[in-house]
Amino acid sequence: MLPAIAWQGRSVVMIDQRKLPAQETYVRCRTYIQVAQAIEKMVVRGAPAIGIAAAYGLVLGVMALSGEPGPSLDRDFEKVYKRLERTRPTARNLFWALERMKAVYERTRMRGLRAVRAALLEEAKAIEREDAETNRAIGRHGRALLGDGMTVLTHCNAGALATAGYGTALGIVRAAAAAGKRIRVFAGETRPFLQGARLTVWELDRDGIPVVLITDGMAGWFMRRGEVGAVVVGADRIAANGDTANKIGTYSLAVLAKENGVPFYVAAPTSTIDLSLADGGGIPIEERNPDEVRQAGGRLVTAPGVEVRNPAFDVTPAAYITAIVTERGVHRPPYEKSLEAGTRES
Amino acid sequence: MLPAIAWQGRSVVMIDQRKLPAQETYVRCRTYIQVAQAIEKMVVRGAPAIGIAAAYGLVLGVMALSGEPGPSLDRDFEKVYKRLERTRPTARNLFWALERMKAVYERTRMRGLRAVRAALLEEAKAIEREDAETNRAIGRHGRALLGDGMTVLTHCNAGALATAGYGTALGIVRAAAAAGKRIRVFAGETRPFLQGARLTVWELDRDGIPVVLITDGMAGWFMRRGEVGAVVVGADRIAANGDTANKIGTYSLAVLAKENGVPFYVAAPTSTIDLSLADGGGIPIEERNPDEVRQAGGRLVTAPGVEVRNPAFDVTPAAYITAIVTERGVHRPPYEKSLEAGTRES
Repeated sequence: MLPAIAWQGRSVVMIDQRKLPAQETYVRCRTYIQVAQAIEKMVVRGAPAIGIAAAYGLVLGVMALSGEPGPSLDRDFEKVYKRLERTRPTARNLFWALERMKAVYERTRMRGLRAVRAALLEEAKAIEREDAETNRAIGRHGRALLGDGMTVLTHCNAGALATAGYGTALGIVRAAAAAGKRIRVFAGETRPFLQGARLTVWELDRDGIPVVLITDGMAGWFMRRGEVGAVVVGADRIAANGDTANKIGTYSLAVLAKENGVPFYVAAPTSTIDLSLADGGGIPIEERNPDEVRQAGGRLVTAPGVEVRNPAFDVTPAAYITAIVTERGVHRPPYEKSLEAGTRES
Repeated sequence: MLPAIAWQGRSVVMIDQRKLPAQETYVRCRTYIQVAQAIEKMVVRGAPAIGIAAAYGLVLGVMALSGEPGPSLDRDFEKVYKRLERTRPTARNLFWALERMKAVYERTRMRGLRAVRAALLEEAKAIEREDAETNRAIGRHGRALLGDGMTVLTHCNAGALATAGYGTALGIVRAAAAAGKRIRVFAGETRPFLQGARLTVWELDRDGIPVVLITDGMAGWFMRRGEVGAVVVGADRIAANGDTANKIGTYSLAVLAKENGVPFYVAAPTSTIDLSLADGGGIPIEERNPDEVRQAGGRLVTAPGVEVRNPAFDVTPAAYITAIVTERGVHRPPYEKSLEAGTRES
C-alpha cells in the first residue's frame, strides 16, 4: 500500500478513500484545483492528511505560475492559497500547513519562481515527513495508556489513511500492539461516510490487529456492559482549553465514556491545536451535502427530498477528555496550561 | 396505505418493511411458518406489530390442524406456538399476545377445532383492535408532554408501521400535531436496519409532519446545541422497575438527554411491560445477522469477513427515563409503583 498521499513527479497521487475497501484505486492530481476538489470530495480526508495534500496542492499551483517577483505574482499565489484554504473549514491542519507554506513563499519570493518552487516542495515534503514522525511519537507516548488485553473503541478513521502514515489514534493502537500488548479495536462505523467501516477496518485488518465493527448507536451499550477499556479518537481542531472538534458522533462517545467510567483519549499532532481559540465555541463546523445522509452504501435509503442535517463534526468539551496525546507527550487537564506548554516547546 | 398487518380471508397480509420506502409491496402469509419467517426477517417489526402478527400466525397454524380434542391436538398446537415464540426474543408483546391466544385455546379446546378457530380469530382481531385503541390513548396522555414549536427526537420507528396503526412514540407526536401544536421530528436513521430513515421519515412525510433525518451519531450534538426539546421512543420490553429494552442506540440517547437536561420519554402499551422481571438485567437481547452491519443500503461497505457485533436492542436504566406513557396514563418514577398500579387496572 502506498501512503494515502504521495508526491510523484509533478503530481500528487492519493488513494481514493471514497472507494475503499471495495476498490483500491488512485487519483493523480496535476493541478491545485484538482487537489482542492479531492479534499472537498473526500478523496483524501483526515486532518493531517488534508494539511499534507494542501501543501502539495500549493506546490502544484505555484508550478503553474509564471512571471517575475512582485505584486502580480503575489496575487497569483494568493489565489491558489485561497482556493485551497476554502476547501474544508474545520481541520486546523489545513490552515496550519498552508500558513507554513505561505511563510516559505514570503521568505523566498524575491529570489524568483524557480527558487520559490524548490523551497515550497521542500517544505511540503517536510510537512509530510514530520507528520509521519509525529505519529510515531504519539504512539510512543500513548501506548502506555492501553493495557494488555484491552478493547479500545475508536471512531471514524484516525489511522494511516488520515495522516502521512501510522495514524494518531490508530498510531497509539499500533504502538501498543507493537509493544506486545494484545489490543482489540471496536470500530464505530461512522455514518454517514462510514470511515470506520470502510477505512479503519481495512487498515487494522492489514495489520493483523483484531477489529470488531459496530454501528455508532451500539458504542454506549458496549461501554455500559463493561466491554470497552478506553476510547481513543483523533481530532480536527483543538482549542486552547482542550475542547476538541472531531468527526460527528465523538461528543456522544465522550459523554457515554464519562458516564461509564471509561477513559476518553484524543490523539493529535500539535498542528491540530489552535491556540487562537480560547474554547471550542469558535470552531467552524462544516455542514456537508444532505445526500450523504440520504444515502447509505451509495443508495438512497429514505424519501428523496427529506430534510437533512449533516454537520461533519462536533465539539467535545474538554471536561470529558481524560488526556490529549500529542507528539510532545500526554497532556492532562487543565489543558490551558498543558497544551500551551506543549506547543511552546516546538 | 393498508395497516402494517391485515387479516384478509385466511391469510395475513403485511407491508414489506424491508423494502420501504423504495417499494410499497405486500407479503401474503398463508401458513404460520411464513408468519414466523416474516417476523424473523423483519418483514414486520415493532413490538406491538410482532404481537399482532404472531396472534394471526397462530390462527393460521390452527386452521391447518385437524383431529379431535385431546393430547395429540394439544401437541400440534404447542408446536405452532413454540415456532412463533422463538422468532424473536426481546419484544414482550410477542409472548404476551401468544399467551393470550393460548389461554383462548385452553378455554375452547374441548369444544372442537371449529370453535377453537373461531375463538382464536376473534382474539387475534381483539388484540389488533385493542392495540389501535391503545395507541390513541397513549397519544392522548402523551401529547401534553410536547410543547408547541417543539423539536422531538425519536429513534427507530415506533409508529403506525410498528403497531396496529397510529404508533406509540409517533402516536404522541401525531396527537400533539392533531391538537394544533407545531411539532418537528428529528428522526435518527437507526443503523443497521435504518428504520428511522426508511420508515419514520416515510410515515411522517405522509402525515405532513415536518421531519428532519439525522444519523445516530448526531443526536447528542443536537441535544447539546439545545435543538431538541424532548426525546420520545418506543419500547420492546419494560421491566417492573422501568428499565426499558428498545432498539439499539436508545440507551445512548437517554444518557445524552440526561446530560443535557432534555426529557426522555418512553411510549408503549402495557402489553410491553414484563412485571416478571424485577429489572432490565433479565431481558434477553437478540443478536442479529452480522451482515446487517457489514452492509448499508443493501451493499457490503466493509471487509467481507470482518467480525461484527449486532445486538438489536439495548436496555435503558429507569434512572434515565423521565416518564413512561402507556394507555393508562403518564407513569413517573418510582416505576415499581407507578407501572404496577397501571397494569393492575387492566
